[in-house]
Amino acid sequence: MTSIPVTVLGLGPMGRALASAFLAQGHPTTVWNRSPGKADELTARGAVEAKDVADAVAASPLVIVCVLDYDAVREILAPATDALRGRALVNLTADTPDRARAMAAWAAGHGIDYLDGSIMTPTVTIGTDQALVLYSGPEDVWTAHRAALASLGGTADHLGTDPGRASAYDVALLDLFWTTVSGYVHALALARAENVSGKELAPYALGITGLMSRIIPRFAEAADEGRHPGDEAGLATAAAGMAHVIHAAEAHGLDTGVMAAAHAVARRAVEEGYGADGISRLVEVLGREAPNRKGPVGPAQR
Amino acid sequence: MTSIPVTVLGLGPMGRALASAFLAQGHPTTVWNRSPGKADELTARGAVEAKDVADAVAASPLVIVCVLDYDAVREILAPATDALRGRALVNLTADTPDRARAMAAWAAGHGIDYLDGSIMTPTVTIGTDQALVLYSGPEDVWTAHRAALASLGGTADHLGTDPGRASAYDVALLDLFWTTVSGYVHALALARAENVSGKELAPYALGITGLMSRIIPRFAEAADEGRHPGDEAGLATAAAGMAHVIHAAEAHGLDTGVMAAAHAVARRAVEEGYGADGISRLVEVLGREAPNRKGPVGPAQR
Repeated sequence: MTSIPVTVLGLGPMGRALASAFLAQGHPTTVWNRSPGKADELTARGAVEAKDVADAVAASPLVIVCVLDYDAVREILAPATDALRGRALVNLTADTPDRARAMAAWAAGHGIDYLDGSIMTPTVTIGTDQALVLYSGPEDVWTAHRAALASLGGTADHLGTDPGRASAYDVALLDLFWTTVSGYVHALALARAENVSGKELAPYALGITGLMSRIIPRFAEAADEGRHPGDEAGLATAAAGMAHVIHAAEAHGLDTGVMAAAHAVARRAVEEGYGADGISRLVEVLGREAPNRKGPVGPAQR
Repeated sequence: MTSIPVTVLGLGPMGRALASAFLAQGHPTTVWNRSPGKADELTARGAVEAKDVADAVAASPLVIVCVLDYDAVREILAPATDALRGRALVNLTADTPDRARAMAAWAAGHGIDYLDGSIMTPTVTIGTDQALVLYSGPEDVWTAHRAALASLGGTADHLGTDPGRASAYDVALLDLFWTTVSGYVHALALARAENVSGKELAPYALGITGLMSRIIPRFAEAADEGRHPGDEAGLATAAAGMAHVIHAAEAHGLDTGVMAAAHAVARRAVEEGYGADGISRLVEVLGREAPNRKGPVGPAQR
């Protein structure tokens, strides 16, 4: 089987990893980057560096773009709109579902086949079993190019024809990821302020990750069913725990913005009378700007 | 070997789990709770319910207290201060390191042996292999009571003689835990707003947990060494990802406080010139109230 030519636009760390994976699977690979000097390693391995974006696009039936955001995508593609007609554009740039849908509409208006994709794993995973890339968009475009996209390795899931769907999963998972990472760097800062090193904290932090493996499917089920039993830990206890963290962090002059915001949401739920409910109740509370229920609030004993 | 008598003060879900574990290991167990009606299941299994807190304390050489916070501990113990003299008090109530040290000083002033402990795993784990309880305080008190405390199951780690140390680990780990949980419930709310169910999102959310297993030891090492290379993902990319989440959440009217606070910290780091640094740079930035370095900020290409 002959590997189809592929063009990769954008040669940041992720773009280079994508081009590298296509090269490794034998695809004739054309690359282009807005600023020069990023392609040397790839051209040494057989990639062709195009002189401009229109030439880059004209070189392949399948064009991958992976840059900072969709504003950058639009800027980059503006001189290549005509060249893209009749080709497939797979946009692996991260942005919001609405923007993905808008980009799909733009592509449709210019006769461009379009898939929106979200890369869920770090650069180093690309081309390996660990890679996870989510796609959404027309079934026929997916079917036509899934073999080439398999060169990126690991798991490639097509989530449906709504072009915003990959991005919807992406933003929800980025939400979890960046919040978690923010919590971890703050935990390291707080531990350091208490003379606990990262090395000392890390094994226990991995234990917290283990707890999440159990919580994730349980909260998902609770959210889907709209039932939030507080059998194990209630919102009042959660709010108290968050308050301890804030006090401890404030005592060391650390920024407490993230936990204060989390605490405010939990407090609001408690004030609305959900103190004995499970934490997954917050899925409902986050979607409402204003309280819709008042109830008595009592201190919970742990 | 004869199991020593143990008293458990506070019969919330966690207190009941603790008393249950001592009973299961054959410890004569006395229980007491500020409000009545919590002890029936335990007395049916052989526990003795004391009529007041001083009687409860007088029944055992080892007294466990687990309530909402240290204010509640002090209120509860006030009438039992004399009764506690010469006994060991193990405070498994969660609170801040400073308060743990203050409580240890109070105990020392009243001739009470004192260990401060933090229960790191949910109620259901108590008495099983999955339990994790951290302790700190005098070595001799730990040595005298570690056998009885082993009845709580799983792992019991003594972290040192500073009575605030268990709480220091606790608040740092609670910091990670509650921030992560806040991120997950927000991710579920955002997914729902995009017609993605919890069940659909959960398998990918577990994948995020898998990424943390790799990130936790790496960031810990970076923090300990004060080196924050941005080889894989830099702060500018992180800030852009967070902004996508905020935009997507705002489009659905969701509360965006947590991510906005996380984004503000990342943005501050980028504005200080750390945009190409790794995310672990934030461990340093969180500890400073005001910027101390200005540098040029350029858009990073992914």
